Amino acid sequence: MSARRGNLPVDGGRLWADLMALGTITEPDRPYTRRSFSPLFLEGRDWLAKRFAAAGLAVRTDAGGNLIGRLDGARGDAGTIMIGSHSDTVPAGGRFDGVAGVIVALEIVRSLRAAGRRLDCAIEIVDFLAEEPSEFGLSCVGSRAMTGRLTEAQLAYRDPAGERLDQAIRRVGGDPARLAAARRDDIVGFFELHIEQGIVLEQNRIDLGLVTGIAGIARVEIVFEGRADHAGTTPMDLRRDAGLAGAMTAAFVAEAAGEAAAGGNGHFVATTGIVEQAPNAANVVPGRARLVVDIRAEDHAATERFLAALDARSGEIAAACRVERARWALLSDTDPSPCDAGLQALLSQSAEALGYSYRAMASGAGHDAAFMAHVAPSAMVFVPCREGRSHAPEEWAEPDAIAAGAAVIHDAVLRLDAQRRQNAAEGSDAG
Amino acid sequence: MSARRGNLPVDGGRLWADLMALGTITEPDRPYTRRSFSPLFLEGRDWLAKRFAAAGLAVRTDAGGNLIGRLDGARGDAGTIMIGSHSDTVPAGGRFDGVAGVIVALEIVRSLRAAGRRLDCAIEIVDFLAEEPSEFGLSCVGSRAMTGRLTEAQLAYRDPAGERLDQAIRRVGGDPARLAAARRDDIVGFFELHIEQGIVLEQNRIDLGLVTGIAGIARVEIVFEGRADHAGTTPMDLRRDAGLAGAMTAAFVAEAAGEAAAGGNGHFVATTGIVEQAPNAANVVPGRARLVVDIRAEDHAATERFLAALDARSGEIAAACRVERARWALLSDTDPSPCDAGLQALLSQSAEALGYSYRAMASGAGHDAAFMAHVAPSAMVFVPCREGRSHAPEEWAEPDAIAAGAAVIHDAVLRLDAQRRQNAAEGSDAG
Repeated sequence: MSARRGNLPVDGGRLWADLMALGTITEPDRPYTRRSFSPLFLEGRDWLAKRFAAAGLAVRTDAGGNLIGRLDGARGDAGTIMIGSHSDTVPAGGRFDGVAGVIVALEIVRSLRAAGRRLDCAIEIVDFLAEEPSEFGLSCVGSRAMTGRLTEAQLAYRDPAGERLDQAIRRVGGDPARLAAARRDDIVGFFELHIEQGIVLEQNRIDLGLVTGIAGIARVEIVFEGRADHAGTTPMDLRRDAGLAGAMTAAFVAEAAGEAAAGGNGHFVATTGIVEQAPNAANVVPGRARLVVDIRAEDHAATERFLAALDARSGEIAAACRVERARWALLSDTDPSPCDAGLQALLSQSAEALGYSYRAMASGAGHDAAFMAHVAPSAMVFVPCREGRSHAPEEWAEPDAIAAGAAVIHDAVLRLDAQRRQNAAEGSDAG
Repeated sequence: MSARRGNLPVDGGRLWADLMALGTITEPDRPYTRRSFSPLFLEGRDWLAKRFAAAGLAVRTDAGGNLIGRLDGARGDAGTIMIGSHSDTVPAGGRFDGVAGVIVALEIVRSLRAAGRRLDCAIEIVDFLAEEPSEFGLSCVGSRAMTGRLTEAQLAYRDPAGERLDQAIRRVGGDPARLAAARRDDIVGFFELHIEQGIVLEQNRIDLGLVTGIAGIARVEIVFEGRADHAGTTPMDLRRDAGLAGAMTAAFVAEAAGEAAAGGNGHFVATTGIVEQAPNAANVVPGRARLVVDIRAEDHAATERFLAALDARSGEIAAACRVERARWALLSDTDPSPCDAGLQALLSQSAEALGYSYRAMASGAGHDAAFMAHVAPSAMVFVPCREGRSHAPEEWAEPDAIAAGAAVIHDAVLRLDAQRRQNAAEGSDAG
């Protein structure tokens, strides 16, 4: 993949071994699954916390439920460089999405300590809470909290078992009553490594993607309520079939998204990932249907147009099916988030210095970095993954590819720290 | 409702009290639910078995898992008159569907005994096992067994937890290894009372429906398998979205059924009652979707045309969505089933003698009587239900309406027994 094969400043073998070890903590019948807030998720976190501590880091869980390991810097006012991602997974997901970014962060700190490098800046590595959409219908719970964007309304979301999100955060070690304490203003640079989850790098044989920006994500929940009638005796023209309204809406989502994607305003996708109907019995007309639609766009205006069309069409479908559209709720709607130009420049210098090929690219997937960009200069490095597969057990990235990303971020961290030192010496940015 | 208000040969108050008492055995958070094979179902059966025994009946569970109470007749070769229905419910169903027919059977036997009537024929009352579609994807399990129509293949069906149907039948007291023992050839008449589950009787202020025949029911399971990809990074035109294939198929079912119903070949309905997609997470393209479609028709040729069209169209949809139609399985396909003309004549004589209005009508819903018609003269009596609602907690029939149906079947049982006695005396039907 890479032309370069020399000594790296990080230990790729140690990194890979840890990544595979964490992958073994999974639901045995449904690899690889470590759902946020679940007992297995907490088992994975215990393992991570021990690794963080063994690397000489001070370990804590912040008020937002993020697991953090910290190494103080030589100069108290130099600020904090943060590196990390998340350890939770989708159901039947992979071993790399999120987790690779956490283990890479750990390896970078281990390598710095092993080399006796003491930075001016503090370094923190982070496992953000619940980056994937949780059972509460919300993603990026921890990075929302760290950036002051987790709302009271969201804290009251409930999972299907009835637990409230704030209760769940407290259960995993957070302190939702003191959520403001999680908000950070000391971070001078945030780096996140992630698998690309697409096919651009692999098809073009490029070592690394330096992310220019992250697509905005909107998520809308739609509930139709009709009437649960006998499937044998209720004539077709007297039905109030909520399941049919759901099916017609899902078909519209795919059709309209295909048109928007072909429209030429950059990356656009929409997905009806969740469909549930009740009572869901063979001989009962469905009385209720629930959908969650996920919309991603580089251009937020495209998202707004799509939401308006979906709002109108789902209302028409409800009327045609003689059901009520009982719920239309925008669960989340994040703006597209540009990455920091200064950090991108450092990363490209590092890639060139280490001899890796790279390209600039947008991220169609959401990431914690999109939230972190609100409070700190933030940047992402993508590594290629096989056939672009992600959120599936087949998800795979080569050990060398991950080590390359770790080496480049390691180098960029040193460059950022040196930049901070120089700025302080020049008195231009001593705050 | 009825012009007639005199002394009935059955005790309507006692009947109603038992019906309400059985309704209290339900999942507390989801009234009224007593799913076949569940602990609550068995609790309801224990209650019924005690009531059967208290009425002086010999109680047993046959090899097919049907609960039966028997009163021997005066003449051993006169055959058996059977009355009954089923006590299981759909999820969040009502208190009348099935159960009313079981309690009415009990009340008829109690009334006969209270009046000191000894019949030539034996009388059996029956609670058929699992009339509603069970978690095994099959309905009318008990009446299939009693009529020799429960196949080895069906016995191997599994519920989502992995239990096989034959294991479940054994668990509730049946003997699937000796299933042939459940098959009956001694029944000279089978009567089933049921709520109409439609609005014809109520809207026309008619006391009773005498059923001419029961619509055939076909049930087909369709599974689409695509690929679970990341919803943010997978372009619309490269997706293999199994959920979309499911949604498009469900929309086709409703559209094609509407056309068939308007086609003028009698009652026709089709329903996509079950839709499940996996992994069913907001940010994953669905990799798998499962549908169960239920089709009912008075004219079996209409069912065959519909199945052929659905087979063809779901294959086209799979190709258009780049997914595989991994499963197309006809779970069941029963012919329309005419009711016995002789028993219909007896019931109409009874209704006239007791002063009730009645009309002949087809049943759009399936019933155990459709299977029983294969081994015995069978007939059904419908009683009106409020707004035609069924398979829902709001399901309701008036006490007087149920008592009227019980009185008419009670009278028809006496007429049938007298007919058997007369035939025996004349030597024309002494077998």
